[in-house]
Amino acid sequence: MISGKNYIGSQQSAKGTKTYTTFNPEANKENNFTFFEATNEEINDAIELAANAFKEYNTISGSKKAAFLNAIADEILALDDTLIKTYCSETGLPEGRAKGERGRTVFQLRSFADLVADGSWVDATIDTAIPDREPMPKSDIRKMNIPLGPVVVFGASNFPLAYSTAGGDTAAALASGCPVIVKSHPMHAGTGELVASAIIKAAEKTNMPNGVFSNLNSSGIEVGQQLVAHQKVKAVGFTGSIKGGRALLDLAIKREEPIPVFAEMGSINPVVILPKALKNRGEAIAKTYAGSVNLGTGQFCTNPGLILGIKSDDLSNFTKELADTMVAMNPSCMLHPNIVKGYESNKSKLILQEGLQVVNEYKSAVKSNYASQVITTVSGKIFLENPTLHQEVFGPFSMVVQCKDSDELQQIISQLEGQLTGTVISDDNEISSYSKVIAALQNRVGRIIFNGVPTGVEVCPSMVHGGPYPASTDSRFTAVGVSSIKRWVRPFSYQDWPNDLLPDELKNENPLHISRNVNGEQTLEKI
Amino acid sequence: MISGKNYIGSQQSAKGTKTYTTFNPEANKENNFTFFEATNEEINDAIELAANAFKEYNTISGSKKAAFLNAIADEILALDDTLIKTYCSETGLPEGRAKGERGRTVFQLRSFADLVADGSWVDATIDTAIPDREPMPKSDIRKMNIPLGPVVVFGASNFPLAYSTAGGDTAAALASGCPVIVKSHPMHAGTGELVASAIIKAAEKTNMPNGVFSNLNSSGIEVGQQLVAHQKVKAVGFTGSIKGGRALLDLAIKREEPIPVFAEMGSINPVVILPKALKNRGEAIAKTYAGSVNLGTGQFCTNPGLILGIKSDDLSNFTKELADTMVAMNPSCMLHPNIVKGYESNKSKLILQEGLQVVNEYKSAVKSNYASQVITTVSGKIFLENPTLHQEVFGPFSMVVQCKDSDELQQIISQLEGQLTGTVISDDNEISSYSKVIAALQNRVGRIIFNGVPTGVEVCPSMVHGGPYPASTDSRFTAVGVSSIKRWVRPFSYQDWPNDLLPDELKNENPLHISRNVNGEQTLEKI
Repeated sequence: MISGKNYIGSQQSAKGTKTYTTFNPEANKENNFTFFEATNEEINDAIELAANAFKEYNTISGSKKAAFLNAIADEILALDDTLIKTYCSETGLPEGRAKGERGRTVFQLRSFADLVADGSWVDATIDTAIPDREPMPKSDIRKMNIPLGPVVVFGASNFPLAYSTAGGDTAAALASGCPVIVKSHPMHAGTGELVASAIIKAAEKTNMPNGVFSNLNSSGIEVGQQLVAHQKVKAVGFTGSIKGGRALLDLAIKREEPIPVFAEMGSINPVVILPKALKNRGEAIAKTYAGSVNLGTGQFCTNPGLILGIKSDDLSNFTKELADTMVAMNPSCMLHPNIVKGYESNKSKLILQEGLQVVNEYKSAVKSNYASQVITTVSGKIFLENPTLHQEVFGPFSMVVQCKDSDELQQIISQLEGQLTGTVISDDNEISSYSKVIAALQNRVGRIIFNGVPTGVEVCPSMVHGGPYPASTDSRFTAVGVSSIKRWVRPFSYQDWPNDLLPDELKNENPLHISRNVNGEQTLEKI
Repeated sequence: MISGKNYIGSQQSAKGTKTYTTFNPEANKENNFTFFEATNEEINDAIELAANAFKEYNTISGSKKAAFLNAIADEILALDDTLIKTYCSETGLPEGRAKGERGRTVFQLRSFADLVADGSWVDATIDTAIPDREPMPKSDIRKMNIPLGPVVVFGASNFPLAYSTAGGDTAAALASGCPVIVKSHPMHAGTGELVASAIIKAAEKTNMPNGVFSNLNSSGIEVGQQLVAHQKVKAVGFTGSIKGGRALLDLAIKREEPIPVFAEMGSINPVVILPKALKNRGEAIAKTYAGSVNLGTGQFCTNPGLILGIKSDDLSNFTKELADTMVAMNPSCMLHPNIVKGYESNKSKLILQEGLQVVNEYKSAVKSNYASQVITTVSGKIFLENPTLHQEVFGPFSMVVQCKDSDELQQIISQLEGQLTGTVISDDNEISSYSKVIAALQNRVGRIIFNGVPTGVEVCPSMVHGGPYPASTDSRFTAVGVSSIKRWVRPFSYQDWPNDLLPDELKNENPLHISRNVNGEQTLEKI
């Protein structure tokens, strides 16, 4: 079922000579399929098709887009075991995770289908004319969100389904009316091709214009660079490393017409554990956090890589308990040999830093591509002085920082780079004595959590997954939840436009029965 | 009343030795006041004060911010004739325009005051917990918009009040909870200082933290560059030239932490006149457009610099009528000798282009700093081949392009750079035969107008003032209307946060009685 070819719209294509394979980290061997890297010609063809499809797709009705998105979900489910097995063979992740992530992917697609079927998401805003206003008559002005144009989505290594081919970025962009070209992630190119085939089938079944979706294989950075630099591409979605995301942002801004890049990048997700909580339930917190740090072999962007407390015996006991619990867990497989290599190298680099101590680490030999977990600790003073210690280690690693006092804790938080999440573990009312610490934390993150763990990102309207740079390139948007559609749209005004030529969303009759702001009041009524 | 000093928060300061004056273009002489360019120390002090003020100002209640904004409006009105006279002496614009612009500025401030007094603008979105959800409990998550941090606003030459010191950008940023540092426009530094004094008075009267506003004098580009590069500045608002806006964008993205730059830049605002309209009322349209092109000596960003029609005798007659009407008007004063110089040089550059013909131009001598108006014409073919002809000429200039047919018209529109506005002049139903032309136009602009003129930008919720690059650096936002507050905020989530520690906007009791989305329903109810 896997051909290794690109999808240029509905056509499978393999014009190139550069090929690559995916790797099964659990079995420690290459998978059987050969993938054909997209050529310049294929890249251009995909973009031209997308630009052409946009002319039709940008005004397709919400109900038709909903049918398309639901059909994608159906076709993904129809791939059944083939998809789950391919996913596992390309990631080393267990079947349960594969199925869970598929469920999330399908849920996201259906959430966006519901959003566009309802139609109110366009934020229709209408100010009717006042012809006799003095000193000048007031025009009739009506505004709604419209799509930007072809969007390039980069698949993420750690979410082959939920943040890749038909993941959150793609679902949001297709929902908004933007065609999508996916730069497939090379580590799970087979999973990507299968999902791409589901999207293409869904597009054909629901009569979408050819070019509304393309999937391009790529094992290096050139395909992505060309896509982002192409003048007919109008926005970019990326999930991955700071280095990768920043390179794309720089490239997008260098264009004659700069375009928005929404990149969700690295994060060490600081967790503040307050003294009373530590005293009263340090052991339980340690056990919970051992699970959170180790979840998915630590390969989550919300992994708690930094735990902050005020120096005390309770903190030392907690740290020991956390380390021992972590190390007692069975090591697990990472996504790819390159990810293991990166983990080991970043871990070693940090462990070599003066003043950083390993509390406990998994010492037995691990299977190939498995990660050995480690918990480290350092004083607040040393952490403050050494920015290398602030860097993310993608894997089952965390660092406990022992701050001198609440002031140092606040200072450390203030100096952190932007983060996706910040967490506070507190006993009842204890938190009220730390308002400056909390204010500092809020200033550095996109989501703040009380007595929980940062891993586990709920897909719902109130979710913010994003944050000050480098958590994301533009903190004004979220990457998770239906609000993420706003990344791919712009507001557009019609002034004195004839009613019958307006889009349905803005017509007097309100034929779509959507919620609109009319002369300052939110209403479902017609005009 | 004008000291020539900077405002570093509430302190007037003149530590530098570099000075400059403003110029009265109508009288053709320098004004009396000397302005002190801000020094590095003053720039840093203003930013540090702003960053410090942000710690308090970012959580100040909507009603207090509303009182501040209304007080600014009151203090601006209290400046009375002093402000109007200073404005006129620094711009060459007539008193009526000064008063009109003051009215608009006050209206904008009061609109934002109403917005934040109401409070619903924060887009509060609440998903309550589902503790018994399978397979995992659902957390309580609550989202609202919070301010980004200190914002730098660049004053605009052509709107000394409405888009400068206390203009749209400043009003929106202060309303959002962001302190503002204004880089005063050197052409109207006196007007700027007066308005700054009004803001400072208002801040003191309403007990705002010192540093919530600063005003820095600058006659070159260095002050602006330093402001944008400073790590404690979190966003930038700019209205001006493409060159200036692009330079700031490039600078902001080069920072270790890139920040959003919202720049509203150039536009030639294409106007499409369809054949029947031209035949039936070409003369009336010509007269209307002569007024629009000449309004404010053509110094509006929505000035119609490009008129597109299909080659015919009617188009020739229209063009002649437009040119003759324009030339019969009295020339008027431009903002500054440098603006006149730019106008004359850009005009000459275009007129030298092969194939561009001057239809009529004002030929008598004009007073110093006055602009002589001109209408030009060119064939569609030549326009398509020569991108120089697509450039903005800031002043009373317009170009009529004679397209071969509807296909060429569509092709020309498709190849235009992004624009603030596009206008269609049509007879009843005529427009329905031009759906491809209209679709192409919509793809290039932020606002589309039917049978009107692009000049005159209504301040209302449905307005979009912005558009694809280079009309603005980020088409996802508007610069006019209360929605422009979204440029300066980011969404922020609280997960399982204790109710009494949540901001009022998100508390169960809904103490502010704002409209919120609770579990998918928009409601004013408590939880």
